[in-house]
Amino acid sequence: MAVLAIDLQGGDLGPSQLIPASLRYFQKHPEHTGVLYGQSDLCISLLPRNLPANVTYKACTQSLPVNVNPAQLLRHQYHSGLEAAYQALADEQVDAVVSAEHTGVLMALMHRHAVPHPAVDRPVLVSWVPTARDPIVMLDLGASFSASAEQLLGFAAIGLAIVEESKGASPSLALLNLGVEANKGPHSLRLAAEQLKHWSDIDFRGYIEANEVFQGRLDLVVTDGFTGNAVIKSAEGTLDLTLSALKQQLQGDWLGRLLGYFLNRRLKPQFIRLDPRRSNGALLAGSPLTVIKSHGDADAVAFQAAIGRATEAVRGRWCHRILDRLDLLIR
Amino acid sequence: MAVLAIDLQGGDLGPSQLIPASLRYFQKHPEHTGVLYGQSDLCISLLPRNLPANVTYKACTQSLPVNVNPAQLLRHQYHSGLEAAYQALADEQVDAVVSAEHTGVLMALMHRHAVPHPAVDRPVLVSWVPTARDPIVMLDLGASFSASAEQLLGFAAIGLAIVEESKGASPSLALLNLGVEANKGPHSLRLAAEQLKHWSDIDFRGYIEANEVFQGRLDLVVTDGFTGNAVIKSAEGTLDLTLSALKQQLQGDWLGRLLGYFLNRRLKPQFIRLDPRRSNGALLAGSPLTVIKSHGDADAVAFQAAIGRATEAVRGRWCHRILDRLDLLIR
Repeated sequence: MAVLAIDLQGGDLGPSQLIPASLRYFQKHPEHTGVLYGQSDLCISLLPRNLPANVTYKACTQSLPVNVNPAQLLRHQYHSGLEAAYQALADEQVDAVVSAEHTGVLMALMHRHAVPHPAVDRPVLVSWVPTARDPIVMLDLGASFSASAEQLLGFAAIGLAIVEESKGASPSLALLNLGVEANKGPHSLRLAAEQLKHWSDIDFRGYIEANEVFQGRLDLVVTDGFTGNAVIKSAEGTLDLTLSALKQQLQGDWLGRLLGYFLNRRLKPQFIRLDPRRSNGALLAGSPLTVIKSHGDADAVAFQAAIGRATEAVRGRWCHRILDRLDLLIR
Repeated sequence: MAVLAIDLQGGDLGPSQLIPASLRYFQKHPEHTGVLYGQSDLCISLLPRNLPANVTYKACTQSLPVNVNPAQLLRHQYHSGLEAAYQALADEQVDAVVSAEHTGVLMALMHRHAVPHPAVDRPVLVSWVPTARDPIVMLDLGASFSASAEQLLGFAAIGLAIVEESKGASPSLALLNLGVEANKGPHSLRLAAEQLKHWSDIDFRGYIEANEVFQGRLDLVVTDGFTGNAVIKSAEGTLDLTLSALKQQLQGDWLGRLLGYFLNRRLKPQFIRLDPRRSNGALLAGSPLTVIKSHGDADAVAFQAAIGRATEAVRGRWCHRILDRLDLLIR
């Protein structure tokens, strides 16, 4: 039973997608409660007259300026829905915030209300990546351009706190590198690997290269935010390219359309698994506040997945488990 | 008319794949000459009694130790075919070396015979990446774990020397980053971007994220070796995953096999374009010696592509054009 604050304004698609997605989610999950934050006029025209019993709407008169700078956000209050949602989270009126706003904005607001754990110097973005099997956890997907050994160990601790809740004992973990041999890669990675060998409650698999991420044989992959972003975007680009090559051949003439019809039925189960929308919802980890970042271009399917992630995070007490794991690093 | 030294021993597949691939290449291209370097017994059993007129074979009695350490290689001579090929290159008996050996080994041997240009502190690996359109040039794919602004400018100069030969005036170039906005990313990237804005003979497109690499709208993408490797491996992993999901559905029952038959015919032209084997052959750039690195798991198609790359490099005088471009950076 989680109480979730939903930001209706963030992201490229806005309230016209996010309102129906949110309503559908809370209708399907009457055990959870949604508090939707939006800007009056637009949202009110899109909301049904009778909201479901577990949904309330909070009208805000203002929204964040377009392309607001995180630094500005630290100095000013804009009385936006997202800021009100964070305030409700800090005041413990809600259990989590879900937003499709830019990472920088979400991090800046996090900074306003909470101090990151000293073992990580800023919030860390934990993502779920579709693979040939189940989605796996990968981090950092945030703003770390490179990572020291200490940061990598912090990322590992954060990821482990999450996956040991779902995967049970001895989750498997690997560091992303440019080769699998022990002598490969930068000093920071080799130092982190040396340490991880001595963590007794994990199955440390050493280094992997980025292609192995998608085989789904691991529970957790640790890397810096710059590389993590490159891996995810590269996979998205390749998937787009392959699927559009496929689509192009399956329309136009009758044989193509016929092939497309049969193929679509057969491939659906596979492609549902690979669909990044269903793994949407990244956790801003490292503070006591549960904030879930949805993709900016999230459609209704993707946004519901992000809300689902928030309920998982609340139920699993992820943020507190993470802080406990991080405490072990600085003892 | 290039004279190419071919290392038959490097790579996972060895002479049984590399000999037929080399013979086929030089039969198809009688204007070029191949000097094949291999270890006597095995190669002689695989070579035809009558070699084509433009192919000679050089027998070496020894080969490199398995998993030879680049540091060892700098201290010892193993009298292997690859070392003989490099010697022939340094002595100007051949125009280029083609090998499927590990990058570290090729770099160590480069170090034995040539000094990298002072604008780059080590050889840089230039690769060709398949995209929705033509393959594009991307670098570094080598051993740079991160790159300073100066190194990034060196990579840009190297790439430009190559693409301006094939693409003509004002080739388009972008830096790989974790966002496209000007304020995104590490300091080194922003410094390099500031400089590139003032390069008059290029079409500088600022930052791209990794998904844009595969759209093929650019001539050249510049990044460090760690990120570059992650992008390539991630794309390979995703392509494998998608194609194996597809194949799995197109075998087994009769309908699947029938769909597979028609689909295969339709998709072949698309998939040939995406096939990384056809973009095989990376250039070890930054010295006067032309060395082409083939993928370690190169089959006959891929290895022929690498030999083709070597002839392009020789014909276009890439290595000298690169040194000229790098000279401009340190004036």
